[in-house]
Amino acid sequence: MPKQLMKMFFEPESIALIGATRTPGFGYGIPKFLKKRGWLDKTFMVNPKGGEIEGRKVYSSIAEIPDKIDLAIVIVPARAVKQTIIELGKKGVRAVVIESAGFAETGDEGRRMQDEVYQAAQTYGIRMLGPNCVGVVNTANKFSTIEVMDHGMVPGHAAIIAQSGVFGNILLDHLPEAGLKVSKVATLGNKIDLDEADFLEYFSRDDNTRVILIYQEGVKDGRRFLAALKKACAQKPVVILKSGRSPLGRQATLSHTGSMSGEDKIYEGAFRQAKAVRAGSLEEMIDLAKVLSTQPKMTGNKVGIVTSSGSLGALASDALHKNGLELAQWSELTLKAIREIAPSYLNVKNPLDVGPSGIFKQAVETAFADPDADALMFIPVVPFAAVSLWRELGFNAMNYLGDWKEFRKKAPNKPAIAILLGFKDWLQDVQNMCGDQIACVISVDAAAKALAALRS
Amino acid sequence: MPKQLMKMFFEPESIALIGATRTPGFGYGIPKFLKKRGWLDKTFMVNPKGGEIEGRKVYSSIAEIPDKIDLAIVIVPARAVKQTIIELGKKGVRAVVIESAGFAETGDEGRRMQDEVYQAAQTYGIRMLGPNCVGVVNTANKFSTIEVMDHGMVPGHAAIIAQSGVFGNILLDHLPEAGLKVSKVATLGNKIDLDEADFLEYFSRDDNTRVILIYQEGVKDGRRFLAALKKACAQKPVVILKSGRSPLGRQATLSHTGSMSGEDKIYEGAFRQAKAVRAGSLEEMIDLAKVLSTQPKMTGNKVGIVTSSGSLGALASDALHKNGLELAQWSELTLKAIREIAPSYLNVKNPLDVGPSGIFKQAVETAFADPDADALMFIPVVPFAAVSLWRELGFNAMNYLGDWKEFRKKAPNKPAIAILLGFKDWLQDVQNMCGDQIACVISVDAAAKALAALRS
Repeated sequence: MPKQLMKMFFEPESIALIGATRTPGFGYGIPKFLKKRGWLDKTFMVNPKGGEIEGRKVYSSIAEIPDKIDLAIVIVPARAVKQTIIELGKKGVRAVVIESAGFAETGDEGRRMQDEVYQAAQTYGIRMLGPNCVGVVNTANKFSTIEVMDHGMVPGHAAIIAQSGVFGNILLDHLPEAGLKVSKVATLGNKIDLDEADFLEYFSRDDNTRVILIYQEGVKDGRRFLAALKKACAQKPVVILKSGRSPLGRQATLSHTGSMSGEDKIYEGAFRQAKAVRAGSLEEMIDLAKVLSTQPKMTGNKVGIVTSSGSLGALASDALHKNGLELAQWSELTLKAIREIAPSYLNVKNPLDVGPSGIFKQAVETAFADPDADALMFIPVVPFAAVSLWRELGFNAMNYLGDWKEFRKKAPNKPAIAILLGFKDWLQDVQNMCGDQIACVISVDAAAKALAALRS
Repeated sequence: MPKQLMKMFFEPESIALIGATRTPGFGYGIPKFLKKRGWLDKTFMVNPKGGEIEGRKVYSSIAEIPDKIDLAIVIVPARAVKQTIIELGKKGVRAVVIESAGFAETGDEGRRMQDEVYQAAQTYGIRMLGPNCVGVVNTANKFSTIEVMDHGMVPGHAAIIAQSGVFGNILLDHLPEAGLKVSKVATLGNKIDLDEADFLEYFSRDDNTRVILIYQEGVKDGRRFLAALKKACAQKPVVILKSGRSPLGRQATLSHTGSMSGEDKIYEGAFRQAKAVRAGSLEEMIDLAKVLSTQPKMTGNKVGIVTSSGSLGALASDALHKNGLELAQWSELTLKAIREIAPSYLNVKNPLDVGPSGIFKQAVETAFADPDADALMFIPVVPFAAVSLWRELGFNAMNYLGDWKEFRKKAPNKPAIAILLGFKDWLQDVQNMCGDQIACVISVDAAAKALAALRS
């Protein structure tokens, strides 16, 4: 799809909002958040009743809008969408987000209406996103067709393609808490026109996006999707979470967005062929994205681990092996440096389990400099008892663990991941200390899988 | 092991703390939290330097202690442990937690010292937990041999057996945040004497415990462990997270607690034979435990799902199928009740995707009463935009979703699980609404796996 058209969706110069209302509901909320983010000045609201909303004129018809429109957001009832599309076509609008539900996902009558909307749009050359979606989000310019929490609008480098509007929305709500920052979002809904392939192409060329996440229920044109996926994967990592793995899930999917999800093994093969990363769960997808959106490529196979928990070191080693990675051999220099400061009981190996010895800081600094480690994993788990003691002594995470952002400068080209487990306060302290330089995730399994994706 | 002995570990009448100090470290923190929880009055502290700590006398030798001791906590350096055990033996102490590290986990010299400690204990019939562990926690009487956050001391029904002290500790720090409440904890360390089998036996007979969680690196006596596991699984669900699945993990494990973790497939077979539930990750173990520690047995195979996200409904359906469960067929009564209030676009099926229709409350109440559903899964995900609108209108989760604690009374014998995804505030609101009656988890996959475990 031409880049110019995608610009109309993500960076519109002017917007028409068809179905703005003064009564609670979708049409009530959208003017509010457009105003909050400074977009209402560029928005023409339409409602047959006319009047004013948020201090701005409401036009009683599309034809009345005095200006050219880049993007129309349609939130009228399903039965009125076709006529709206015709009027938008006459007005010369070429990009439309249809948020209205009640189409193919509800059965034959809805499917018929959806087909009619499609035909109407074809007549005018209109490109559509939806129906049954919540449109787009762009954190860079704070434009969105759905309300997003302030935290969710902090710009990051993960782009999301979500088939379902609610799911896309939930992701946006959940991600700030989970520590993942987003670049752009497209929710697809029933995919009457634009689909995964269009956004894969656009996001793979988007400078703000380093990883693309897809939540998918099914595709219409498998060949087109696979071609787009392959091309995108050649540019940057693509992580896919797909439902409809089982007969039960396929049935549920059919009644949700009206799409056939097909045999899972066909998808599995296609994903592998394209070198996409398949996430086993939502939680895994988030951890993968946190690493892939912030960390550089991994140039070798070997990982150095510094941990304060031998158990988690062992679990991480298992995870590396499962993902085809190896443990680095610490260099003589590293071994010497650690042995000089380590207490006698400490077994200097990889994973380097420093236990409660207090040498985590030096161990991290030394590990970053080790030539055999192509990537680093740090597991700074500390019992509450220890943290409360340090705090009594006036220490914070950085005092005890060192300034990892500084250490990281010694090895800017190696992926570095911290595993965060423990109690909230401490985790926040460690997260702040890591900044965006070191990816903070929950799961050693996801960390290893992400490193493998950075290797390929 | 005799129940009387376990009582000495978890409900001691009197305690000796060998190695209490006034300088920061383990021996400094323990008197503080024993005092805080009201246990210092029953504690005799020992340190050759004598003096006072926290306003109480410190005895300069074990022999000086004027009273009988149920449990000794040993935190002296490794080299001094053997002599301490001898003195405790002479004093008549029979239960000892050795928290000191520096034994078999550090190599041959440490292993030799550990063997000597074992021999000394044999002479006096002392039973030991550790070394290289942090002992026990009992939330019912607030006794612990390691500092635990206040939140972690709220009594619950999940017992934990963790090989590693740090790991057990991290779990205790992490679980309150994750919403899992604990009954008792035993950390095993190098397992010089007491091991998983002893605590499996004890916890399986403990009335406060409904599920037992094990983090394991390896076992010494496989036959004994398997027999204990089988017996325990016949009483209540046992969830196991085991490291050392791969050669890398086994190597790491060996240098951690000095135990051989063995071929993973042997363990896998043993777990299956005993009907234990194997967790794939720490996060999965926590979600499983939240369900298994609060929900009743599942008497049939069929699950009813009410969701506001079609996508998550589809993912949940996949997860049910993977775990050998089925979707319930809503009864005519249920269908009729929902259709009467549902908007026309709503496809009344299972999963019941109510979307933004506002009928989640009635759907949950109706689902609880449905005779075909043997268990219920609710996915009340709500976009931030909607919640912020409700709040403006003065609504909270209970206003919108109903009082699930009340609805639950219609079906006290069916497991009920809520999936919590979205933004923090809302999740807390839903969690409060669910109380302990409905298990709140993150992952639909773990929810389905837990239901399958409640079925068997």
